[in-house]
Amino acid sequence: MKKYSLGIDYGSLSGRAVLVDLETGEEVASSIFEYPHAVMSDTLPSGKKLENAFALQHPQDYIDVLKNTVPAVISEAGVEPSQVVGMGIDFTACTMLPILSDGTPLCMTDKFSDEPHAYVKLWKHHAAQEQADRINALAEKTEQKCLSRYGGKISSEWMFAKILETVEKAPDVYDSTERFIEAGDWIVMVLTGNETHNSCMAGYKAMWHKRDGYPDNEFFGALNPKMKDIIGTKISENVLPMGAKAGVINKRGAELTGLCEGTAVAVSNVDAHVALPACGITSSGKMLMIMGTSTCHILMGDEEVNVPGICGVVEDGVLPSLFGYEAGQSCVGDHFEWFVKNCVSREYMENAEKQGVNIHKYLREKAKRLKVGESGLVALDWWNGNRSILVDVDLSGVILGMTLSTKPEEIYRALLEATAYGTRVIIDNFEENGVKISELYAAGGIAEKDELMMQIYADVTNREIRISASPQAPALGSAIFGAVASGYFATAADAAAVMGKIKDTVYRPIPENVAAYDRLFKEYKTLHDYFGRGGNDVMKRLKAIKEEAANA
Amino acid sequence: MKKYSLGIDYGSLSGRAVLVDLETGEEVASSIFEYPHAVMSDTLPSGKKLENAFALQHPQDYIDVLKNTVPAVISEAGVEPSQVVGMGIDFTACTMLPILSDGTPLCMTDKFSDEPHAYVKLWKHHAAQEQADRINALAEKTEQKCLSRYGGKISSEWMFAKILETVEKAPDVYDSTERFIEAGDWIVMVLTGNETHNSCMAGYKAMWHKRDGYPDNEFFGALNPKMKDIIGTKISENVLPMGAKAGVINKRGAELTGLCEGTAVAVSNVDAHVALPACGITSSGKMLMIMGTSTCHILMGDEEVNVPGICGVVEDGVLPSLFGYEAGQSCVGDHFEWFVKNCVSREYMENAEKQGVNIHKYLREKAKRLKVGESGLVALDWWNGNRSILVDVDLSGVILGMTLSTKPEEIYRALLEATAYGTRVIIDNFEENGVKISELYAAGGIAEKDELMMQIYADVTNREIRISASPQAPALGSAIFGAVASGYFATAADAAAVMGKIKDTVYRPIPENVAAYDRLFKEYKTLHDYFGRGGNDVMKRLKAIKEEAANA
Repeated sequence: MKKYSLGIDYGSLSGRAVLVDLETGEEVASSIFEYPHAVMSDTLPSGKKLENAFALQHPQDYIDVLKNTVPAVISEAGVEPSQVVGMGIDFTACTMLPILSDGTPLCMTDKFSDEPHAYVKLWKHHAAQEQADRINALAEKTEQKCLSRYGGKISSEWMFAKILETVEKAPDVYDSTERFIEAGDWIVMVLTGNETHNSCMAGYKAMWHKRDGYPDNEFFGALNPKMKDIIGTKISENVLPMGAKAGVINKRGAELTGLCEGTAVAVSNVDAHVALPACGITSSGKMLMIMGTSTCHILMGDEEVNVPGICGVVEDGVLPSLFGYEAGQSCVGDHFEWFVKNCVSREYMENAEKQGVNIHKYLREKAKRLKVGESGLVALDWWNGNRSILVDVDLSGVILGMTLSTKPEEIYRALLEATAYGTRVIIDNFEENGVKISELYAAGGIAEKDELMMQIYADVTNREIRISASPQAPALGSAIFGAVASGYFATAADAAAVMGKIKDTVYRPIPENVAAYDRLFKEYKTLHDYFGRGGNDVMKRLKAIKEEAANA
Repeated sequence: MKKYSLGIDYGSLSGRAVLVDLETGEEVASSIFEYPHAVMSDTLPSGKKLENAFALQHPQDYIDVLKNTVPAVISEAGVEPSQVVGMGIDFTACTMLPILSDGTPLCMTDKFSDEPHAYVKLWKHHAAQEQADRINALAEKTEQKCLSRYGGKISSEWMFAKILETVEKAPDVYDSTERFIEAGDWIVMVLTGNETHNSCMAGYKAMWHKRDGYPDNEFFGALNPKMKDIIGTKISENVLPMGAKAGVINKRGAELTGLCEGTAVAVSNVDAHVALPACGITSSGKMLMIMGTSTCHILMGDEEVNVPGICGVVEDGVLPSLFGYEAGQSCVGDHFEWFVKNCVSREYMENAEKQGVNIHKYLREKAKRLKVGESGLVALDWWNGNRSILVDVDLSGVILGMTLSTKPEEIYRALLEATAYGTRVIIDNFEENGVKISELYAAGGIAEKDELMMQIYADVTNREIRISASPQAPALGSAIFGAVASGYFATAADAAAVMGKIKDTVYRPIPENVAAYDRLFKEYKTLHDYFGRGGNDVMKRLKAIKEEAANA
């Protein structure tokens, strides 16, 4: 009898399950379920208004993903539940919620059903910036070692900023919370009854370190007296490495999914990080770019090096006994969406329609015909700030070089190129700090669809790029960890060797383009440093003026 | 019997005549005639291909303007030709042509009818840049005094660059030319039989100075041996001040126009400069902005000061015994046209259509609702290089401050503001060099129609702005000079007092906007100097790369 592993990828708007044949690595069935509550940024289900920058979710939606997608893939594949020997899940992070010790989300109790802070705070809940600022200030003042692992700053998206926000804005919720937990770990708890935490989420999003643990309670007490004993009480110290088995499916888990009790469940994982083994990456020096609305850059190294401006380095953060490095660009697909929504002429829109192609494809076809440098444009890709390596949300976008003959496809191409330059800055920064990057891999919608962009990336970075062959790399990665948890494979590397896949296409740098882009990148870098490193803080001043004007 | 003066304004695509009542200043009739050959930039009438950057016109079109518009206004107004006591014309400049000494254009002789260099080179004929570069280099090397009057550089659009191009590219044409003449002076010659030249065109476009004359023949001989005796032969030294009478309409002039022989004709004038008296400006310190696709800034001063980066200062250049100063911005209306053509979303286009308003109006309505600084954007208005005060065609446009929420109307407003900042740089530069500017006036389509833009200009410059009341200020200005030539008024100031007009509307600076724009202008100026004065020559390098790529 064939054996299978199940992976579930929880994204920002839906969950997607995939069932994988452990012998062939074939993805035999997949199923997607969209969250009925999606992202709540205006109101709670009751209609209660939310404040600015809120982004909440409803935990019932995650349960409904289990109920819908797991039976669907089992039935589509025509297999027996007993043939599914393991499962893994990955989740956006830090996407966290307050629960009782039995796993009940606070928002699902009568008392707190109308309390925003009792709901899931999605990764892109951005209302805790002032709390993050205070955490950073205190961490700097008290010389917390962890800061340097995070490129010098922690983000408002992370666990303790979101918790501190709850302490300050909804102390009642804080007091009644028995655990703050990543939604990924919570789903594992729902399935197995075991509360586990994983080194990836804890390490990248909650200031945890394999050897040093969390910052001490003195630090948290100084942030707010209520938090003085948070570690070990509301925050569990039971952090397991990636690939570990969290437990087995219990009665409730079996009822929800239709899987057999006793099926192995891996510890949860972050959606981006889990994609590395799905592309067959199990060793150091290979950077995976997960390219969507934003890009996440992940690679592994053999030792821990503090690299300025990255999102973090975490031991066992991707695979056991390697150091996982993460960096990111906050505006990639979003960039092109913005452009197409706001800046493309009607003529082009109508031409694209006449030709029956999507406007992105139409623009790419035109952009492809331009030679490197022919547009005369260079842009800074900071429409949504700069995550790595400047770590500055107050930076903004620039386009330079326009003339009266500048065409939309030239600007479009300049924006593509700007994101490639941004990636090159990240790569150069890793290498200058001693973390070598020999090969690039890419996953996500852009990587699969956009040949022009991938060729530009190969030319700008002067590196070969390989593309994930699975349209759902994170879910496949979760299935890989499920297979390891089941014991079918001894290690993630063994599992990835069978189940991981990349396409045959390799984007190879074209020498004359590399040379031309070297000159253009120099211009980008000069502007990057001028506007990003204090040469001219015009962007910050304009932002301040903008906020004053909006509030006047 | 009432008396009238006729003004004809020769623009880039059409000629427009206006008939003015000398007692009341009322414009009693007007007529427009579009040039049948328009601008020839691709081919000659024969179909012969033109080279890049050519912009030629056919002199017959100018004659046809006379034939069509003059009888039309006389008939429309119902006056006797004898009631028209004077006329004046203004023309784009430097728009020049080679003629025989009897006035025959070379292109209208059999020998040269298929020779591009025998046609009228329109002001925006841009094929003589290398000749201009060589003239500048030689002028600098030989320390020609004139250079400092032109802000340090002469333009490829000017008379001697265009002549040197003819010498080098079509020596036959040069050899057969008996006079090179501004098209404005040529039309006066057609009407009167007299070859005259005017201090405005000669001073601003042909390196002529009231006291020093032209550069000496040694200078021209060093440019090209063929030019060693050009002054006094192919270039007349008979330069008359503005307001002078060139002659009277002769038999041919009467046949062409239907006017009476003996009617006074003023010397020709430049279309921008002639607009000052049309707005009633006859004294120093009042700057007129003629706002169209580009903006021309003209004011008068009581003495000659060398101001760096301006287009020129010419004694008698606008009115006798005052010094006319000219500066300019190369991309104003063109800027907004570019934006609307390339960068406005289909949604906005369709909304504008639904509301039955033009897209510019639609965008302005949205932009008007923004507070100063609310967009968070700042732009450099260099889509067509920078005429004043950087005098650099290799500069290009910048937009800075975009986020994912940036809307088209915000960019549109940033472009409006950028042109206002550009004007403020010009004003500040005049004042820093001792030429005071107390009031602003504006004429042209934008000035009349765009309240938002004019208010922004008032706020950015912190000066009151008055608007020309004539929809055809240049033609009215020409009629004013025609009236002076006829002797009806003793001086242009007397004529302007009756005939010049401004609207009742005055745009007054709003103190809080002035304060807000002061902060934004500081940001503009920092970027202006960084990119425009050698801090970062990225624009020039990008342009060089662009040209290499295009030619590869």
